[in-house]
Amino acid sequence: MLIVMRKSATDEQIDRVLEVAKSQGLTPVPIPGAQRTAVGLTGNQGAIDPRPFQELEGVRECIRVSRPYKLVSRETKPDDTAVTVHKTKIGGGDLGLIAGPCGVESAEQALTIARHVRKAGATLFRGGLYKPRTSPYSFQGMQEQGLGIIEDIKAETDLGIVTEVIDRSSLDAVLPVVDMVQVGARNMQNFRLLRAVGQCGKPVLLKRGMSATLEEFFMAAEYILSEGNYGVVLCERGVRTYLDHTRNTLDLAVIPAVKDLSHLPIIADPSHAAGIRSMVRPLALAAAAAGADGLMVEVHHEPDKALSDGPQSLLPEDFDKLARAAKAIHQTQQAQTA
Amino acid sequence: MLIVMRKSATDEQIDRVLEVAKSQGLTPVPIPGAQRTAVGLTGNQGAIDPRPFQELEGVRECIRVSRPYKLVSRETKPDDTAVTVHKTKIGGGDLGLIAGPCGVESAEQALTIARHVRKAGATLFRGGLYKPRTSPYSFQGMQEQGLGIIEDIKAETDLGIVTEVIDRSSLDAVLPVVDMVQVGARNMQNFRLLRAVGQCGKPVLLKRGMSATLEEFFMAAEYILSEGNYGVVLCERGVRTYLDHTRNTLDLAVIPAVKDLSHLPIIADPSHAAGIRSMVRPLALAAAAAGADGLMVEVHHEPDKALSDGPQSLLPEDFDKLARAAKAIHQTQQAQTA
Amino acid sequence: MLIVMRKSATDEQIDRVLEVAKSQGLTPVPIPGAQRTAVGLTGNQGAIDPRPFQELEGVRECIRVSRPYKLVSRETKPDDTAVTVHKTKIGGGDLGLIAGPCGVESAEQALTIARHVRKAGATLFRGGLYKPRTSPYSFQGMQEQGLGIIEDIKAETDLGIVTEVIDRSSLDAVLPVVDMVQVGARNMQNFRLLRAVGQCGKPVLLKRGMSATLEEFFMAAEYILSEGNYGVVLCERGVRTYLDHTRNTLDLAVIPAVKDLSHLPIIADPSHAAGIRSMVRPLALAAAAAGADGLMVEVHHEPDKALSDGPQSLLPEDFDKLARAAKAIHQTQQAQTA
Amino acid sequence: MLIVMRKSATDEQIDRVLEVAKSQGLTPVPIPGAQRTAVGLTGNQGAIDPRPFQELEGVRECIRVSRPYKLVSRETKPDDTAVTVHKTKIGGGDLGLIAGPCGVESAEQALTIARHVRKAGATLFRGGLYKPRTSPYSFQGMQEQGLGIIEDIKAETDLGIVTEVIDRSSLDAVLPVVDMVQVGARNMQNFRLLRAVGQCGKPVLLKRGMSATLEEFFMAAEYILSEGNYGVVLCERGVRTYLDHTRNTLDLAVIPAVKDLSHLPIIADPSHAAGIRSMVRPLALAAAAAGADGLMVEVHHEPDKALSDGPQSLLPEDFDKLARAAKAIHQTQQAQTA
Repeated sequence: MLIVMRKSATDEQIDRVLEVAKSQGLTPVPIPGAQRTAVGLTGNQGAIDPRPFQELEGVRECIRVSRPYKLVSRETKPDDTAVTVHKTKIGGGDLGLIAGPCGVESAEQALTIARHVRKAGATLFRGGLYKPRTSPYSFQGMQEQGLGIIEDIKAETDLGIVTEVIDRSSLDAVLPVVDMVQVGARNMQNFRLLRAVGQCGKPVLLKRGMSATLEEFFMAAEYILSEGNYGVVLCERGVRTYLDHTRNTLDLAVIPAVKDLSHLPIIADPSHAAGIRSMVRPLALAAAAAGADGLMVEVHHEPDKALSDGPQSLLPEDFDKLARAAKAIHQTQQAQTA
Repeated sequence: MLIVMRKSATDEQIDRVLEVAKSQGLTPVPIPGAQRTAVGLTGNQGAIDPRPFQELEGVRECIRVSRPYKLVSRETKPDDTAVTVHKTKIGGGDLGLIAGPCGVESAEQALTIARHVRKAGATLFRGGLYKPRTSPYSFQGMQEQGLGIIEDIKAETDLGIVTEVIDRSSLDAVLPVVDMVQVGARNMQNFRLLRAVGQCGKPVLLKRGMSATLEEFFMAAEYILSEGNYGVVLCERGVRTYLDHTRNTLDLAVIPAVKDLSHLPIIADPSHAAGIRSMVRPLALAAAAAGADGLMVEVHHEPDKALSDGPQSLLPEDFDKLARAAKAIHQTQQAQTA
Repeated sequence: MLIVMRKSATDEQIDRVLEVAKSQGLTPVPIPGAQRTAVGLTGNQGAIDPRPFQELEGVRECIRVSRPYKLVSRETKPDDTAVTVHKTKIGGGDLGLIAGPCGVESAEQALTIARHVRKAGATLFRGGLYKPRTSPYSFQGMQEQGLGIIEDIKAETDLGIVTEVIDRSSLDAVLPVVDMVQVGARNMQNFRLLRAVGQCGKPVLLKRGMSATLEEFFMAAEYILSEGNYGVVLCERGVRTYLDHTRNTLDLAVIPAVKDLSHLPIIADPSHAAGIRSMVRPLALAAAAAGADGLMVEVHHEPDKALSDGPQSLLPEDFDKLARAAKAIHQTQQAQTA
Repeated sequence: MLIVMRKSATDEQIDRVLEVAKSQGLTPVPIPGAQRTAVGLTGNQGAIDPRPFQELEGVRECIRVSRPYKLVSRETKPDDTAVTVHKTKIGGGDLGLIAGPCGVESAEQALTIARHVRKAGATLFRGGLYKPRTSPYSFQGMQEQGLGIIEDIKAETDLGIVTEVIDRSSLDAVLPVVDMVQVGARNMQNFRLLRAVGQCGKPVLLKRGMSATLEEFFMAAEYILSEGNYGVVLCERGVRTYLDHTRNTLDLAVIPAVKDLSHLPIIADPSHAAGIRSMVRPLALAAAAAGADGLMVEVHHEPDKALSDGPQSLLPEDFDKLARAAKAIHQTQQAQTA
């Protein structure tokens, strides 16, 4: 932490900062400048709360230096983490493909789509049983009734299964069946749920919150890692901005930023960012070119009848093309980087 | 819903829109214009999903007309709702004052502050037992250990008690003791929790999510009302923007907007919006002038030692002044409106 | 500036930072910590560009300490600046009222409104001759044709005149007639225009840009002051956010933030923030309660016929009430602060 | 336009809407629904101002249907526009490469860089003579002194020249020398400047404003087209959001959105979006994959000595690699789309 004093700060005020710092077990280092003095604080273990100093007389600003995340930091673990989900490795250099409907609606619907996406090259199946919906009057998912369907899909297709959990009881319900649990954007700071999935023993797909900073995203992952679960895959799905031509604004710069600061893999969900089918493909290709470790894409064979997110779901034949194109872009990107 | 066709749309494409509408039980009304045709859809009960139409050939845009909220709408209930919490009525014309520390840290701390804020005119005490913290390494609240403290405060001061719940188990724990349960910003779309507080039989303070639109805010309240609990007080606490001179951007325009569209009362939390003590007072006064039904303010007698949110907590003597000033502004505002 | 090294930074990398700093005439102060080293840079005159250091090996982050604004800073001039416009002092403790139509449309329209707002207590008249419009097909203002009207208003009512300029030629045209020139939000970073008004010898009303940070707002003012013109009044008019219930999000926290960091006065424009009549009053009162030095309000006696911004213009009788209420709130706020 | 009435609206209130519509020369079409009535308005030439209706009694909402842009709309001109700048066609299927320093600093600097980027495959040279800088104390560009340098570059390298103009006088100065004039983000709504470049007879590179919506971006282009200049290339350069890991948030979804709604070509500027060198490449590749018609990249052979934007400038050798990689991604994307 750096405490910047006002130009007009008196020696007494500076001394008071030193005192407060020492009383907190910190080592203050005064840095006298031409115009003003600053005080560096060292000796801390984690992040220092900037704010106790903020209101002292003569203090103009407290500037945080340490980052609060530890286990997710590349400084802690320099090598890339690869997370194995069923037979797929996410983060090892390949482009992982997770695909399926927004929600599981029936055995026939889910199986039809699962067969399609496997043929197109996906190795992981997504399909929500517990749907967090903005309206209490919307379809909330098949919940426990859909568990058998998911088991059947896995048995028939050998696809790994990814599904969302929204609280402790839904987590308990899906754990025996799934290969990866997903924490959705609305629950990125549901800290009780983060701790629970941290203890669940399965890989976790952590979606970025609607307006999460990168640091908050990392701290949410830190909750999971701090419970001993290192199998975390981050997922960029767009953030809320003033823009109105897509549902959310896909922040692709977060991909190189994550790779710089953390060892965790990161994938992109172009479907939720786009909100509309015609935008999914360009955003998917862009994510692959930016270095994403995978893509999660919504697919539905009858999007007009989908109970949720139909309009942003790709038709199976369009997913075929997208999968092919994304892999080609990924290979080009890898070849050019090598 | 209004379906706007492209200029180049053919009669067949328009007919296809009519068909799809009818197949969904809707009544389409074509509106031929000089340059293009639009199709109004009526006959729906709730909101129509714009998106099934969006991808039909020849469709340029689907414009939603119905609002998805019902029970919270002033069209459903034209008169203001007043929510009684212990002996305080929020929404009846007075300015409700909820005050206390961010978190309950000890019996002494909480009682000291409770006595102060009561003397200053607050009638409701806030104090978190379950703290949702960005970092897993931060103080997470006294949890069950603090329940007795809260009971003591109520017994001694007769202040009504408001405290945050973060999941079913924390809700169960606090219900016997508190007068109002709070759903925090990070849980505004934790729909399971919303349903649970909707069934809990106590008034609910619903804080606005970090980047919630007004419609999402209303829909979160709708979850609670749809479970039969009409005792909901909304709370504006700032939203996330690009601005960096406060922690969150207090959106005071939401106060008249809520009053226009809904019957529910709305209060403001200037402490979380400000993030720093010196900003709390001007924002509190501004909220009162904008027509807020109450204020929720963080107060601590030793903010330097607070385990959370110390720097934005007012000293008791500053809260005295704020309470007096806010009541004066409220009275002036009421007098000028009458 | 503070240069934070990576944990893994070598001594050579730290030395390289010291070298680069010295080569730029700066004095580096190493601050070795438990986990990593930081380097404080002092000896600079203005702000140091963080970025030359950012790409050096071993550097994790460059944290700016100095603020780039000088003349606008309260550290440079501790006392409040009051700006006198015709006979009105803005910033001296009173609540200045600037009112009038969005645009001057005819002599009759402008004079009718001017008489009304003077009677209601406004002492400054606003009325645009040069209107920056989003669409090239919209009314662009009366331009030079309206100059005579403005002269007549001043002659008859003795109101001071405030009008917007959009380039050098419009500035030259209005200068002989007006008491204060306005730089609109869209031109807040039109640096040539800022320099020109800095040399014009008349007070300047500087509106905040659509998405300007406080620092950018200050730097725009710095352009004007650096040309020798200290008569600058800042104007908050709402910023762009994701919110859709008002046209812009009024950022009232900027008022105490400006007063903390700068000596310049700041007023609020609730009309442009609201975008709709019914919101103007609550936002105006909120701004007064937050400590604004004045209000600028759009008024039109026939808003349905206004060529611009009719729907956010108050009727004269509503402006009467607003002026009265805002003054009452201002007095209450002043009395409580004293 | 669609006027949505409140549920409680009376027949008189609906009649009043019909009247007002007719008085404005519009044809109202009532659409009675189960719960409420809406009124469609047709017969308009351009966009209808929603707001005159907004304040009528019984009106709940006015929903705009027409888009205000005409000449830039794909509905007006279905075929893609390709803009020829010197010998480069932007928008014809190739990936245009514009590269060079942020600002021209000396003949040697500019020529060195120009030779490099030409060798790497760029066909257009960027280099600012008039730099809009946030601070009045920063380098403002060589201005007229740099004109000769630019002429020399063109003579020697045969690169087309792109440079920014900031007002009428800078436009007049550069016109004889350059192949394309650039309007920067801060001037996107400097409407006088837009009209001037609309009359200048040279192609225009229009950068998106800091927080411009797509519609505002189109309307800025409309100003230029409405003066008879159809040679407009749009440029996405990132928008302002709450995110802090890049300088601006690159909005790649705008690329397919522009291609859907307009015939104009669009390129991306990853340098200004990134703000830091290491992010430029992934964003450039992502833009190419998303379908951009070109890239504009800042390059400097001695970025540590650059007078502006050094830290986001690529070294010449890195630009070589980026150019190669971007072309490979572009080809892959084109091949997969065909």
